[in-house]
Amino acid sequence: MIINIHLDAPPETLGQVADSLAQANIRARQTQFGGRTVIVTESNLDEKTCTTLLKMQAVESIVEILDPYPLCSLQTRPQRTTIRIRDFAVGPNDFSIIAGPCTVESEKQVLTTAEQVKAAGAKALRGGAFKPRTSPYAFQGLKLEGLKILQKVSRETGLVTVTEAMSSEEVKMVSEYADVVQIGTRNAQNYRLLETCGEARVPILLKRGFSNSLDEFLMAAEYILAGGNEQVILCERGIRTFETYVRYTLPAGAVPALKLTSHLPVIVDPSHAAGRADLVASLSYASVASGADGLLVEVHPDPKHALCDGRQSLTPDEFSKMVRICEGIRKAVGC
Amino acid sequence: MIINIHLDAPPETLGQVADSLAQANIRARQTQFGGRTVIVTESNLDEKTCTTLLKMQAVESIVEILDPYPLCSLQTRPQRTTIRIRDFAVGPNDFSIIAGPCTVESEKQVLTTAEQVKAAGAKALRGGAFKPRTSPYAFQGLKLEGLKILQKVSRETGLVTVTEAMSSEEVKMVSEYADVVQIGTRNAQNYRLLETCGEARVPILLKRGFSNSLDEFLMAAEYILAGGNEQVILCERGIRTFETYVRYTLPAGAVPALKLTSHLPVIVDPSHAAGRADLVASLSYASVASGADGLLVEVHPDPKHALCDGRQSLTPDEFSKMVRICEGIRKAVGC
Amino acid sequence: MIINIHLDAPPETLGQVADSLAQANIRARQTQFGGRTVIVTESNLDEKTCTTLLKMQAVESIVEILDPYPLCSLQTRPQRTTIRIRDFAVGPNDFSIIAGPCTVESEKQVLTTAEQVKAAGAKALRGGAFKPRTSPYAFQGLKLEGLKILQKVSRETGLVTVTEAMSSEEVKMVSEYADVVQIGTRNAQNYRLLETCGEARVPILLKRGFSNSLDEFLMAAEYILAGGNEQVILCERGIRTFETYVRYTLPAGAVPALKLTSHLPVIVDPSHAAGRADLVASLSYASVASGADGLLVEVHPDPKHALCDGRQSLTPDEFSKMVRICEGIRKAVGC
Amino acid sequence: MIINIHLDAPPETLGQVADSLAQANIRARQTQFGGRTVIVTESNLDEKTCTTLLKMQAVESIVEILDPYPLCSLQTRPQRTTIRIRDFAVGPNDFSIIAGPCTVESEKQVLTTAEQVKAAGAKALRGGAFKPRTSPYAFQGLKLEGLKILQKVSRETGLVTVTEAMSSEEVKMVSEYADVVQIGTRNAQNYRLLETCGEARVPILLKRGFSNSLDEFLMAAEYILAGGNEQVILCERGIRTFETYVRYTLPAGAVPALKLTSHLPVIVDPSHAAGRADLVASLSYASVASGADGLLVEVHPDPKHALCDGRQSLTPDEFSKMVRICEGIRKAVGC
Repeated sequence: MIINIHLDAPPETLGQVADSLAQANIRARQTQFGGRTVIVTESNLDEKTCTTLLKMQAVESIVEILDPYPLCSLQTRPQRTTIRIRDFAVGPNDFSIIAGPCTVESEKQVLTTAEQVKAAGAKALRGGAFKPRTSPYAFQGLKLEGLKILQKVSRETGLVTVTEAMSSEEVKMVSEYADVVQIGTRNAQNYRLLETCGEARVPILLKRGFSNSLDEFLMAAEYILAGGNEQVILCERGIRTFETYVRYTLPAGAVPALKLTSHLPVIVDPSHAAGRADLVASLSYASVASGADGLLVEVHPDPKHALCDGRQSLTPDEFSKMVRICEGIRKAVGC
Repeated sequence: MIINIHLDAPPETLGQVADSLAQANIRARQTQFGGRTVIVTESNLDEKTCTTLLKMQAVESIVEILDPYPLCSLQTRPQRTTIRIRDFAVGPNDFSIIAGPCTVESEKQVLTTAEQVKAAGAKALRGGAFKPRTSPYAFQGLKLEGLKILQKVSRETGLVTVTEAMSSEEVKMVSEYADVVQIGTRNAQNYRLLETCGEARVPILLKRGFSNSLDEFLMAAEYILAGGNEQVILCERGIRTFETYVRYTLPAGAVPALKLTSHLPVIVDPSHAAGRADLVASLSYASVASGADGLLVEVHPDPKHALCDGRQSLTPDEFSKMVRICEGIRKAVGC
Repeated sequence: MIINIHLDAPPETLGQVADSLAQANIRARQTQFGGRTVIVTESNLDEKTCTTLLKMQAVESIVEILDPYPLCSLQTRPQRTTIRIRDFAVGPNDFSIIAGPCTVESEKQVLTTAEQVKAAGAKALRGGAFKPRTSPYAFQGLKLEGLKILQKVSRETGLVTVTEAMSSEEVKMVSEYADVVQIGTRNAQNYRLLETCGEARVPILLKRGFSNSLDEFLMAAEYILAGGNEQVILCERGIRTFETYVRYTLPAGAVPALKLTSHLPVIVDPSHAAGRADLVASLSYASVASGADGLLVEVHPDPKHALCDGRQSLTPDEFSKMVRICEGIRKAVGC
Repeated sequence: MIINIHLDAPPETLGQVADSLAQANIRARQTQFGGRTVIVTESNLDEKTCTTLLKMQAVESIVEILDPYPLCSLQTRPQRTTIRIRDFAVGPNDFSIIAGPCTVESEKQVLTTAEQVKAAGAKALRGGAFKPRTSPYAFQGLKLEGLKILQKVSRETGLVTVTEAMSSEEVKMVSEYADVVQIGTRNAQNYRLLETCGEARVPILLKRGFSNSLDEFLMAAEYILAGGNEQVILCERGIRTFETYVRYTLPAGAVPALKLTSHLPVIVDPSHAAGRADLVASLSYASVASGADGLLVEVHPDPKHALCDGRQSLTPDEFSKMVRICEGIRKAVGC
């Protein structure tokens, strides 16, 4: 349940609410949501407690939300959330493509790609500075140097930047140099990291854990919202199944199912799902047709010589053609 | 490998080919494909055997196909197959929607639905007469009576009919009364049934086994083609994964991956994948955007009172709206 | 629900029961179970119908079974079923190992293996005459000739024989030549085949479909019991997951979970699960420790030269050592 | 590849090795392993580089390991690793059971359980102080207070303690108060956390990610070994599949497959796999029979009133009976 606190409630009146919940043995958490203070309870309140609370000066209203992720729930915010940074926006009326190389390799590589994807219609630039690698012996990214390159290219091109952080320290570093912090699939249930994201003041692009249910995915987002950061972009990137012709199976129903449940914008990463360039365009079309608010796509000026994941990167030309078709699909489905 | 036999090769010259293969210890199978006799070998031929065979009067050419399903392979027939019955066609230039109730309940129910889906743009009518049920105590379909209803409605509406067969005997019965024999997901590796389909002279709509790899799916189709029946429509219908918000996860990449591999037309059944009506339209859009040649959709005039699977059936109005949007998507992706 | 009919109820009194159920709109099926006539209903009966039925001459008692597979349910037969053929028995007090080659290749191969596995403690011989093959071009088994070899070897060694049937015709053929009909994983939901097994008068070894839930597995067994054949051995053989170091993941909990639910004996096939010989013994030990009533193991006198699946076959020596350890484990777990 | 450095090689001679690898464009990492300095390379060395290196004063030998996790590989250490803390040991000749409540609730609860599991044969005590919870509103554990309780109970009972850490800070805190740091399934690919574990000087109990392949699991362990900490206990705890009668499917083949590949000890957590108490004993027996070096089991003096996961906790009596049977199985399999 969500207890909405009056906008002008004096802070000292909140203690009474907390006491009342403690007496009723209800675990609860106070946070900011939609520009106001709210208190979210773990479980439902009985009628008596509700009545008591509603009489308190601080309490404006109490809303029953059946979903276990009340702040993410569409019931809480039927008008849906739009995340907006400069020209870039994802939300019910704003479709945006984030594109760029898997890994930041050099300023030249990033700048070239940035200019090409911008020309093709991308609104944001992706590129990894901290790389989660299965092997401790593999290239781990350019780290701070990579962040600086992203920042420089962003200043030159005007593109918004998105890059991954793998620890609380990295969230802070990324927040300084980039516009959006990405949380990867392997950290999708790294609750300490999600808590740090809740304290951050930049939007978070949260990937679904590759074996998480949609409920677990939304609960991960709820960690961030409960921490006070409402700017979360959900990103489906494929799940692990028995299939082998793709790296991960992209479930065609995930986007519409998430949008029936949550007000948060939902984008899709077709590149990591496919793991092969020749399926990326088709997966993008499927995603847009099923209602995705955006895409996160790997593009490399020279995929064959990419340091990482070249096999799944589009060339700028392929990307450009794909963007145009996506626009047509969006019109066809009435977005 | 495929050994193409001369169109006018006297049958007695084929024995020589068989002898030569037997001597080389190569298992092989003779069948009809593309209007001619071909011999498909299990394994590759060595150069000496090839040379010997090519000198024989009966042999026109030998084609090396690396796929384990040579007759289904796109390498064998790059121009792709179109399945055509009266007005109905599925193939590279022909998109068709097959719609109708899960189960044939009565003549009135089928006729009403048929007229409604035809008006909305469906080219074929689906409806189960033999129903594969998990429980031996559940309703098993109207059987022969159901087939007769389908035939009558087909004559009145002109719609092509598609209905399932679960045994070799049923394949024969369905072939008499309906236009297309459907093989369900639970029989996707019922090889004796597939062999009977190979002998049938009607098109086969073959559903993917819900835990079959794409290779296993194509091998099932190969059983039918190897039996002499080239008219196979592949149907993706979702796979079993850990996900629970849908009955089966519809892999967004299956259609494009199949079309990169095989010349057979590929359609999608979004209804059985979703298992809930509110996702069927989105899954249909995703399927069409990713290149599906057609859809198989459950429509019921009164889903709440359907005998079976009403939860996943569209109303005729919902269906009609969906068909129009699918047409727009097809244009957008350039089909 | 199960309606138990009096042992001496005149057949004509059953019509009254059927009429009463039809009036109440309850689907039901009459069969033989535990040496008597029973009527199984699809859904629960209301109190009024129960009262009416209990007054009828034919009805002895009505038992409410909550499981959707009432005849398989442990509630129906708490004392558990033992399947017994000559020396061979599987059940609560009888552990039996079925061993032999994947495929019947020749009389000599089968006889040699039979003698070796018998010496090591096997009570039954397995060997495929009809082989379900993914490819239509692969060796399909010796068929009738294979059945005759099995029968001959059975007569010489006294071993009970188990072999697969893939169609209703093959069930009849196998019933004539072998002792137990095996239904393979790919036919686990081939309901027409299961119906034929219900009419057969030999025990059925039913493998779990590699992506079937335990409920679907038991419902498949229920098809056979509902047909009048109570002699069903359940066989877990691994499920399809994302794992790749084995062909199929063998769930350590399947045997105990099945035994908490059903009275039917449960055995395990570690060979097809592992797909590699070096894990077969460990999977066997795990199965026995978790309560399996028997094992189905591939043994080949010369695995490297096996026509099929040699990679997963034990040598007779490995098998012999494994059997002794299994006996020790059974004692340790108190069987 | 592993480059073994002479025990008495002066540190300054290592620069030459690094230079040579850098020139050959080979990524490498220096660490301590088996009491000596080693350099592990990401990829194989060509013959020329090998020859050059072998001539250097610092280099004793170069070992080619084909596995991508050279330090974990059984090839590197065929004699297998034993982890030993006071009375507790897990390894080829030492079987140990770690038992205790899911969550540290109070000193009394922990002390009672500790005494009971010790009496039954447990060698170590588990209990969560930092709890990874799907919901941000759920009880998150007693944290530092919980660690202090564990330490106190350990001092009173002599039991070794195992408890989870979810961040680098928590690894440090846990190292101070407990004997073994547990890394949970949701952090199995949290590489920054694994790096911290590499720097820790206490043993790490590493759970398999519930959708990680065995290779990914061993690569996670390799992160810890590459960081200089060889004391890793691998813990299988079940994987996510389509099955629903258990929380996670426990693969019967994981333990033997891991032991064929790695020298690290492997234990099993049957409690989190099953998610229900009535299967825990059977899963334990299966695990021990398949070669597990230990078990991690939830035991609660009063499961019905546990704060967390009571549904899967054994009572002390059930636990005691289970331990005795496990000992019998170990003898039967010849451990």
